[in-house]
Amino acid sequence: MTGYFITFEGPEGAGKTTVLGILQEELSKKGYDVVCTREPGGIDIAEQIRSVILDKNNTKMDARTEALLYAASRRQHLVEKVIPALEEGKMVLCDRFVDSSLAYQGYARELGIDEVLSINEFAINGLMPSLTLFFDIQPEKGLTRIKKNDEREVNRLDLEKLSFHQKVYEGYVKVANRFKDRFYTINAENTLDVVAKEALELIEKHVNKG
Amino acid sequence: MTGYFITFEGPEGAGKTTVLGILQEELSKKGYDVVCTREPGGIDIAEQIRSVILDKNNTKMDARTEALLYAASRRQHLVEKVIPALEEGKMVLCDRFVDSSLAYQGYARELGIDEVLSINEFAINGLMPSLTLFFDIQPEKGLTRIKKNDEREVNRLDLEKLSFHQKVYEGYVKVANRFKDRFYTINAENTLDVVAKEALELIEKHVNKG
Repeated sequence: MTGYFITFEGPEGAGKTTVLGILQEELSKKGYDVVCTREPGGIDIAEQIRSVILDKNNTKMDARTEALLYAASRRQHLVEKVIPALEEGKMVLCDRFVDSSLAYQGYARELGIDEVLSINEFAINGLMPSLTLFFDIQPEKGLTRIKKNDEREVNRLDLEKLSFHQKVYEGYVKVANRFKDRFYTINAENTLDVVAKEALELIEKHVNKG
Repeated sequence: MTGYFITFEGPEGAGKTTVLGILQEELSKKGYDVVCTREPGGIDIAEQIRSVILDKNNTKMDARTEALLYAASRRQHLVEKVIPALEEGKMVLCDRFVDSSLAYQGYARELGIDEVLSINEFAINGLMPSLTLFFDIQPEKGLTRIKKNDEREVNRLDLEKLSFHQKVYEGYVKVANRFKDRFYTINAENTLDVVAKEALELIEKHVNKG
């Protein structure tokens, strides 16, 4: 495979999705053949799996069941969308990947980072990203950004969630330290322009190195 | 947990389901509190997962996606049905469990027994059966039994499938050798009465030993 597989990680409200849009435009202008995606990525089987995960009636869903379903959805998205694009030599930018499962389910939901990594290794069968950009923002600030966007009042649920998002953040820090070779941390508390510029530079440096 | 978790494995047409029916009756008569089940076992979330696996339109489903979905369905069936019954001290007889995945997906579909075991260990989180009865029948004989039941002619698909079922059988033999401590092999080419009697004896011996 000749393409580049680059993932974007970070807490909610870190600006990943917006920056991905900017990067797709900038990198395309520079002549890169870019595919932006996120799971389940419009893949029919992966969408079906997601709808089981997200069904509000499935309140009895066990955390391990959920982690296995995420891994299944990930596998299908990879096989049907990511791998074919990489085989065509494209640059694939993916909004969240394995590291999200490690931070959210492995660490914050306390299933264990190693345990969740193990089922994800089965799912990806060796296809780890060569570069992961970690959008580093304190969870409170991320949540505040989201709330501004939604024009919502802070409610009880949001407050309850903060401790969970703090654990997700701690999980990301652990994961970033573990996979130092491919992880680059970007200060996502800066303005989107600054963040996008830094991300662009890191991607070009990575691609030119390869 | 004070109950007994006993699984039934073997190729298709081995007579597991029929024998399970006989055992449930015999063991109940003897005063055991027996739950007979098979995945997805009427568990809503597990049924939803199964319907994704079995949907005939999902022809693009990758073998790893399928294995992860089976493990997810297994987890939910375990959490909602098997574990509660074991906690109530019941004897749970389960038609197929982890070893089916090892033989079918791990060995016959060539994903690797160790790899499929790894995701299933995540799913079951330590809850292996204490006794597994392997219904040993040559795959040709098992398929012939099924065909007799269905009153169908042998068709091209059945013939194609034989090599797959032979691999499943080889897989079972490997798995049985690996987990000798809990595996007991029953000659399932005998009549159902003989098979049921042997299974009953093995279960009672196991329970009285414990």
